[in-house]
Amino acid sequence: MTTTSVAAGPIDQALVRRRHLSQVLRTAARPGPWSRARIAAETGLTRATVSSLVADLINRRLLREGAVERGGLGRPGQLLALDPDHVAFLGVEINVDYLACHVLDLTGAMVVSRTVALDVRQLDPTATMRRVGKLVNALVAGLGDRPVQSLHLAIPGMIETTVGRVAYAPNLQWRNVDAVNMLATEVNLPATRIAADNEANLAALAEYAAGSAAGTTDLVLVTGEVGVGGGVISGGGLMRGARGYSGEFGHMALADPSYLCGCGRRGCWEAAIGLDAILARVSEPGDPLRDVTQDLPSRLAEVVARADRGDVRTLEGLREVGLLLGRGAAALVNAFNPEVLMFGGTFAALAVHLEAPITEALTAHAVAPGAGGCRIAFSTLGFNAAGIGGAQVGIELVLDDPTSVAPFRPQPGGRR
Amino acid sequence: MTTTSVAAGPIDQALVRRRHLSQVLRTAARPGPWSRARIAAETGLTRATVSSLVADLINRRLLREGAVERGGLGRPGQLLALDPDHVAFLGVEINVDYLACHVLDLTGAMVVSRTVALDVRQLDPTATMRRVGKLVNALVAGLGDRPVQSLHLAIPGMIETTVGRVAYAPNLQWRNVDAVNMLATEVNLPATRIAADNEANLAALAEYAAGSAAGTTDLVLVTGEVGVGGGVISGGGLMRGARGYSGEFGHMALADPSYLCGCGRRGCWEAAIGLDAILARVSEPGDPLRDVTQDLPSRLAEVVARADRGDVRTLEGLREVGLLLGRGAAALVNAFNPEVLMFGGTFAALAVHLEAPITEALTAHAVAPGAGGCRIAFSTLGFNAAGIGGAQVGIELVLDDPTSVAPFRPQPGGRR
Repeated sequence: MTTTSVAAGPIDQALVRRRHLSQVLRTAARPGPWSRARIAAETGLTRATVSSLVADLINRRLLREGAVERGGLGRPGQLLALDPDHVAFLGVEINVDYLACHVLDLTGAMVVSRTVALDVRQLDPTATMRRVGKLVNALVAGLGDRPVQSLHLAIPGMIETTVGRVAYAPNLQWRNVDAVNMLATEVNLPATRIAADNEANLAALAEYAAGSAAGTTDLVLVTGEVGVGGGVISGGGLMRGARGYSGEFGHMALADPSYLCGCGRRGCWEAAIGLDAILARVSEPGDPLRDVTQDLPSRLAEVVARADRGDVRTLEGLREVGLLLGRGAAALVNAFNPEVLMFGGTFAALAVHLEAPITEALTAHAVAPGAGGCRIAFSTLGFNAAGIGGAQVGIELVLDDPTSVAPFRPQPGGRR
Repeated sequence: MTTTSVAAGPIDQALVRRRHLSQVLRTAARPGPWSRARIAAETGLTRATVSSLVADLINRRLLREGAVERGGLGRPGQLLALDPDHVAFLGVEINVDYLACHVLDLTGAMVVSRTVALDVRQLDPTATMRRVGKLVNALVAGLGDRPVQSLHLAIPGMIETTVGRVAYAPNLQWRNVDAVNMLATEVNLPATRIAADNEANLAALAEYAAGSAAGTTDLVLVTGEVGVGGGVISGGGLMRGARGYSGEFGHMALADPSYLCGCGRRGCWEAAIGLDAILARVSEPGDPLRDVTQDLPSRLAEVVARADRGDVRTLEGLREVGLLLGRGAAALVNAFNPEVLMFGGTFAALAVHLEAPITEALTAHAVAPGAGGCRIAFSTLGFNAAGIGGAQVGIELVLDDPTSVAPFRPQPGGRR
């Protein structure tokens, strides 16, 4: 080869080692079994280098040794796997009428999860953050001595991710809320381990990583409850836009101007298909369906139960919502030409009665023949998607840079 | 380093050489001056390798030697630059009422360009392709012995790019038209040198490469004349979607259902803001503005002239169009959060009277504060954008693989 050679300084060495640690950890995260020898063969690193890297990762309790493999190629070797019992990753969703906190381990498995109904619109941001802090502290207390690596807040609004600030969240009525720093005062975590991102973007990442259409490189997610937003996976990556504000599908002016939206405008799509609009179609004031102190999934299950029993008002309401959803879906299919258009949140909970009218309206309104091959799907992650996506972003960051997790004890002669 | 070493076979060697040829050619395409020594320093390749690669590129007439550089670093060396006098790249646009053919040289400079008014809706695809062939043949005849490297067709519709087939072009009323193979029978070029792509996607690539907002990594283009489409540059790359059908913004159901669209649906955005709708607002039947046999830019210049003279109907019509454009622009800004929203085609020709109402409606309807920082711009490439974009795709392909251009004569001892 004819490339120029530059002597590696200490910074380069640290970078190279970090990249190698990441390579080994990402390899071990794939379906195994993995021995040191197999990891060496897979990564192209030498056995000696892999052994040193594995020792480092075990010391950080990111990898652990398991069963001894016999009968394979070469000498028997101990199998390695991600350590699911140490670092924990939190994803916390703040939505209009609930808070949810999910704790995942390094393998992406759920450790514990809790959702509480809360009418966030009745509280100011400080009071809401106090409730979030209480929820987080309760779950973290239950983790014993497992360290929390990161906490990602999922918020239905436009987030300045670099500083963890909510620029504007229409349905929470939040403007310029310093979410990350506020939460840091409520929990036993430094602000540097807390981040905030748009709820629908995180949900789209969760669908891409772990949902029923995982791995679909062109996927559009439409999700929400009172507010409706979206996330776009394009060419295998999250489409963020210039400032991370992309995916605000709820405010397309597709609906009749008689619909007044939480953003103050008229005719927004979400004002016609969001949770409030759905409940208004299928119930009268005073109906327990509208009781925001009650758990949302249970209320939506009741809507489905009424429709299943053949309640005409419920069936007609859901059909109208589905047709309006399909009309907006057509605009998204025209714009993005996704392989899968996924509906999450409220829509996933009502899937059984929404799928037919969505498909009908999408087929009629999308300009590409056969809607450009787009398949309609409903999230199986439900209301957990955004929180799970947040925790998964934390996992990805560790897989990218395992040195962000502190060593358990100094290695003999090793670096700190 | 601890990577495994694999012996390079002949295929790898060819790949490595192709990549090095591309590296050298792309370096020389950047602002210079470039000597062999500077290219070596820039690419990290040895002087000897660079000399061999440069000789190859000169033999393909992609590079040429120019002035001798004196007084710089090291010994004087002959300067190298892209050869603008050899390979030619064609971009041909088929639109509802005109055909355009642009010829670019390797540096992206225009060699020759011709636009002819043609009422394509009155012709079948075969007759249209005959007219395209005639236009192309006339321009190619004027190129003398310069070889045509590629011809990219820009068509306002959904294109199966891998086979060069138009799946559906609503405003041309084309379905399943085998465009590339049909054109190959009309021109002196093999079908392998002809490709077809969506007009707005190619125009977005042209804006990204050479327009007034060149290099903007998050850019949305809205363009068109009778039909309205778009192209999206996201994170520095063209967003194509699963089948290349993305960017069909014209059919968002944003307008009043009284507008009947060329696609057969009601309420499509383009039915309210496309060329036909604009002309209907500002003129009566029989007005020369509506004469499709007349050159479109001249007709639009006349619209601007009437508005400049204070003609009330024209001014009111353009303001209504601008407000409707801004309303749709808000949906796009909500969805994509671009840094720049660029208007091309008809809209660019009417920019002076559209900018204020577009900005007014965008600011009112976009949900992000300050429209998420989005800046409105108008294309300076005008009706040429799609054709230029097509030719530029051909240039990019040669910069990626210089061996796709045949050598001028076999090199002594060189590979064919």
